[in-house]
Amino acid sequence: MASSSSSAAVEAQVEAVRTIKASPGASQFEMDTAVESPEGLKLEVTARQEGVNNNENGATSGLSNDALRQAVVNILERRLFIIPSFKIYRGVSGLYDYGPPGCAVKSNVLALWRQHFVMEENMLEVDCPCVTPEVVLKASGHVDKFTDLMVNDEKTGTCYRADHLLKDYCKEKLEKNLNLTPAKVAELNHVIAVLDDLSAEELGVKLKEYGITAPDTKNPLSDPYPFNLMFQTSIGPTGLNTGFMRPETAQGIFVNFKDLYYYNGNKLPFASAQIGQAFRNEISPRQGLLRVREFTLAEIEHFVDPDDKSHPKFANVTELEFFMFPREDQLAGKSARKICLREAVSKGTVNNETLGYFIGRVFLFLARLGIDEDRLRFRQHLPNEMAHYAADCWDAEIESSFGWIECVGIADRSAYDLRAHTDKSGVPLVAHEKFSEPREVEKLVITPSKKDLGLAFKGNQKMVVGALEAMSEKEALEMKATLESKGEAEFLVCTLGKTVVITKNMVSISMEKKKEHQRVFTPSVIEPSFGIGRIIYCLYEHAFHRRPCKSKDEQLNVFRFPPIVAPIKCTVFPLIKSPEFDDAARSIAETLTKAGISNIIDITGTSIGKRYARTDEIGVPFAVTVDSTTSVTIRERDSREQIRVDIKEVVSVVKELIEGQSTWTDVVTAYTQT
Amino acid sequence: MASSSSSAAVEAQVEAVRTIKASPGASQFEMDTAVESPEGLKLEVTARQEGVNNNENGATSGLSNDALRQAVVNILERRLFIIPSFKIYRGVSGLYDYGPPGCAVKSNVLALWRQHFVMEENMLEVDCPCVTPEVVLKASGHVDKFTDLMVNDEKTGTCYRADHLLKDYCKEKLEKNLNLTPAKVAELNHVIAVLDDLSAEELGVKLKEYGITAPDTKNPLSDPYPFNLMFQTSIGPTGLNTGFMRPETAQGIFVNFKDLYYYNGNKLPFASAQIGQAFRNEISPRQGLLRVREFTLAEIEHFVDPDDKSHPKFANVTELEFFMFPREDQLAGKSARKICLREAVSKGTVNNETLGYFIGRVFLFLARLGIDEDRLRFRQHLPNEMAHYAADCWDAEIESSFGWIECVGIADRSAYDLRAHTDKSGVPLVAHEKFSEPREVEKLVITPSKKDLGLAFKGNQKMVVGALEAMSEKEALEMKATLESKGEAEFLVCTLGKTVVITKNMVSISMEKKKEHQRVFTPSVIEPSFGIGRIIYCLYEHAFHRRPCKSKDEQLNVFRFPPIVAPIKCTVFPLIKSPEFDDAARSIAETLTKAGISNIIDITGTSIGKRYARTDEIGVPFAVTVDSTTSVTIRERDSREQIRVDIKEVVSVVKELIEGQSTWTDVVTAYTQT
Repeated sequence: MASSSSSAAVEAQVEAVRTIKASPGASQFEMDTAVESPEGLKLEVTARQEGVNNNENGATSGLSNDALRQAVVNILERRLFIIPSFKIYRGVSGLYDYGPPGCAVKSNVLALWRQHFVMEENMLEVDCPCVTPEVVLKASGHVDKFTDLMVNDEKTGTCYRADHLLKDYCKEKLEKNLNLTPAKVAELNHVIAVLDDLSAEELGVKLKEYGITAPDTKNPLSDPYPFNLMFQTSIGPTGLNTGFMRPETAQGIFVNFKDLYYYNGNKLPFASAQIGQAFRNEISPRQGLLRVREFTLAEIEHFVDPDDKSHPKFANVTELEFFMFPREDQLAGKSARKICLREAVSKGTVNNETLGYFIGRVFLFLARLGIDEDRLRFRQHLPNEMAHYAADCWDAEIESSFGWIECVGIADRSAYDLRAHTDKSGVPLVAHEKFSEPREVEKLVITPSKKDLGLAFKGNQKMVVGALEAMSEKEALEMKATLESKGEAEFLVCTLGKTVVITKNMVSISMEKKKEHQRVFTPSVIEPSFGIGRIIYCLYEHAFHRRPCKSKDEQLNVFRFPPIVAPIKCTVFPLIKSPEFDDAARSIAETLTKAGISNIIDITGTSIGKRYARTDEIGVPFAVTVDSTTSVTIRERDSREQIRVDIKEVVSVVKELIEGQSTWTDVVTAYTQT
Repeated sequence: MASSSSSAAVEAQVEAVRTIKASPGASQFEMDTAVESPEGLKLEVTARQEGVNNNENGATSGLSNDALRQAVVNILERRLFIIPSFKIYRGVSGLYDYGPPGCAVKSNVLALWRQHFVMEENMLEVDCPCVTPEVVLKASGHVDKFTDLMVNDEKTGTCYRADHLLKDYCKEKLEKNLNLTPAKVAELNHVIAVLDDLSAEELGVKLKEYGITAPDTKNPLSDPYPFNLMFQTSIGPTGLNTGFMRPETAQGIFVNFKDLYYYNGNKLPFASAQIGQAFRNEISPRQGLLRVREFTLAEIEHFVDPDDKSHPKFANVTELEFFMFPREDQLAGKSARKICLREAVSKGTVNNETLGYFIGRVFLFLARLGIDEDRLRFRQHLPNEMAHYAADCWDAEIESSFGWIECVGIADRSAYDLRAHTDKSGVPLVAHEKFSEPREVEKLVITPSKKDLGLAFKGNQKMVVGALEAMSEKEALEMKATLESKGEAEFLVCTLGKTVVITKNMVSISMEKKKEHQRVFTPSVIEPSFGIGRIIYCLYEHAFHRRPCKSKDEQLNVFRFPPIVAPIKCTVFPLIKSPEFDDAARSIAETLTKAGISNIIDITGTSIGKRYARTDEIGVPFAVTVDSTTSVTIRERDSREQIRVDIKEVVSVVKELIEGQSTWTDVVTAYTQT
């Protein structure tokens, strides 16, 4: 349980800011928390950075979070960006399809990811299976610890997430019950704040204390017990070989470390990357697209010498400045603020250069995608949120109508993962630093005399030998000094639970000089892990705008996707129905297709305004309108400006715009507007 | 069981050609066969087309199939194109990782697939989850029929595929036992030929008859029984909701038909496509990369009016000519031969234009990838290989060291899949053809008089009503005539198992004219289904070449990938160690990266010949060698020719070559060779 002082700080924030975190329980990126055993409390609700408010700044002003979400999800479903999976069979909660435009957006995001990370950083991309044998996930800790706490309706057997029920109860009380005493309010807020850190027993006690019953039936509930979130299956026909659908892609990289290190010429640092499906059998998925049972992850494992976490390209990102939310500021109840990356690393706010470099690269990636920089922050994990082995951890959080969403986790996981697989597999996953010439090192050598110890301690000999060999350098040198001055020394043997007397003949302790030709060590791993579906959902909300419709009172929807993300890059419209214009339009569309530019041709003769509106709604950035057979207009979606270009040039102009070689402003300047 | 005449034909072939088919049992593409109930025999071994022989024509001449395979797999493993998954835990059979170059090849193949099909054919791409609820796969037939027959060692429980054991036995007898009578040889060949069509009982009888025991222990075997090849799991925490990892991606498209049809403006034809993982829990995977438990499929479902299977773009492919192997030629023991696609469709060899169009497009796709056209054939399914509902089916088979491999299946599956999901879900998956003006149609109307039937048949009334309503038009009109002439008619009610007498007052039968405004029908689906991993493996074998090494007696390995497929497009080498050259090389590499061209820079100072050899082995098509700070050479991998270009032009020249805007010959002509 949390100490009272830090939980008080958290409660202060809960009351002060009321920004609800996206993920009430184990999120896609809380695996670390699930696998570790956090000792303190978890900050559940975090402060909103000042001056950043979707409802005040954007073109979406006036829309409440609920209205924004409804408007966006309405387009997403109506225009088939997403489809609830297996809809004709009433669907399965937590499973969604990407329909045609959604699928194109996803492809574009992944292509940009590959270019921005794999290509520009020379990463070694791998592609491993989803089906994973038990031993791998036993080593990683998932088999034992990747769980959520569950309760059952004692009569119907219906399953609920225990923390959800407790949280819902507390929130409802706080919202509806105006007669609560200040003490009660504080208590309920405290429960919400420490929810993620409650043990099964503590959760059970609270559920009983508050008389919480099954929401659907009001039946009594079972005690909470852990439910493993992995989809289990069986590999091969015997039923004896348990397998799981991987809950993350990272393990596929760790188990290949040895081969990848060899591939990289046995040199550090290097990074490996993987894009692929991951699976989590959520107890009761809520929050639509943000909490799903199958999703695409893009993960990077950057292996680095633990003694040298500098990064050769750090200088490229030092001047970046964006919203960061360091641990200290969170605990002090402050807001996120813009910090320069150079300063964050030099002051030690961010643990090391490599971690800082990746934070900068993630920022650039999200900005290139079209995430609003003012609704993006990097939040540092509080000590209790981090795994015990982690050196530092930052989440890229994006603000959406659900609150702040963890979309990318960037963690320095130290040597934990490679050590775990080394231990379990017996294959050393280590790196070597060859010295240019052998180095002389002093090493402590403890040599117990088993004969003398046996005579003195008989059956306890083994325990004493073990304790002597396990002494630290400091302890050993102290004992050496004592033995030399007094001939004997008192020595606590923990495994015996008592102190024994060691005499000079029982052990020889010395510092010996040895020549070493290389250093063998387990690399540290820095892991940026991207929840692609979450990033895409936030992108939809940030790209969403409304503008007044000329003719009517309604508002028109626009997705202001950057060209690189837009599912369809260009439309081709003959202005009026005419065989000549239709032919010209078809020929332009064909050339666009050959050039790899996705396009829609619409020769329906619907009014041009309607055709624009229809394609603005799915975010098509450029529209070519054919109103002559020699020159055409190109219209830009956001400014609604048009330029006139020769029909022979249209594809090359659009291609330049799409690939980012020219901006719209460049093109407007280059072509006289008519 | 097979009729004796057709199995005799097959046996003749077995003896005559001795080309072993890649997939002894249920292959990745035999789902159709598994779900249908074939009534005839399955052609297991097929004829080799004349004049096509990897060992005689290519630069790989002199290599036996085994040697070729070993040479290729050796590079694939050594250079990390593939890695046995979870290798440090001794791996899991049937699971492989793509290492860095393999992953790049896969990305390139999929990108080309998207451009060639999704983009150029305006397909609606979707992306559905792998986790699939039972009801969907119950409807598709997979839950009941997607099985292989298995036997157990009765003492140890070890599982074997029953057909494998029988086949191995027959082949071993044929190969080793020189004293077999001609009758015995014919019998064993017959068993091999009809293996896939044997029922569990028939297989069991054969295993007993031949005294086949467990290969590892010689223990007796259980009777064969079906083992479902899907990985089973449980969705959600209750354990009550069975799910499976999808065995193909097609079902995700079928269940979305209604939405996709709407998205396409309620118009036919249109195609939807999906790329994704599929899973098959093979009993005992053999043949390395060709028979795996998890693999990437790329599937197209083209929906078309069953009354009009013409294709608007068929004219684009009519003049293509390639190896085809029609059903009749197979049964007549002939070889595959080059046929012009126009002729194949006009003569009815290929069932319809749309099927023909896709065969042509698949041919173009595989040729673009670098599949040798002389080692590619389109083989038509024999009647017994096809599902009962299929109109026609062709496999693109690629010749490899394992024999002919089914890599793409192109099937006209008629209305089967949409009907199956309509029946199971109750949601009509149909298309509408609106008539420009209402059409008058005559329709049979049968109106039983329930009152009169009740009086006459009491408790059996319902059965009689049902039988009357189910009469065909012919039966009904005959009854009408009889009732009019005789006043009564005899009528067999199957559900009662007896004939009853129907009188005139009991039923009214008439043909009525109705106006219809539209036609409602279930579309046919034409399904090209690509096994991406198999195509890539065959590509490796076709791209593999050896050339003599100047200095030594050995041969150098080269993968002659087309630039579009090559995992790394370009290398950059300073000719000698020099800070200036290193800087120039780094700057070229950076520019290539920015342009999205994957490259390797090697400044190790190893001899240039060794650096070329190293990168030829992974198929890098172009090498830039920096031997001055103003101009550099570009070397082409296969011709080993070099041109000299200005250092400022190098990236644009390489980009043109990679994107296919220029060929090497164009570039050689343009730049004076030095």
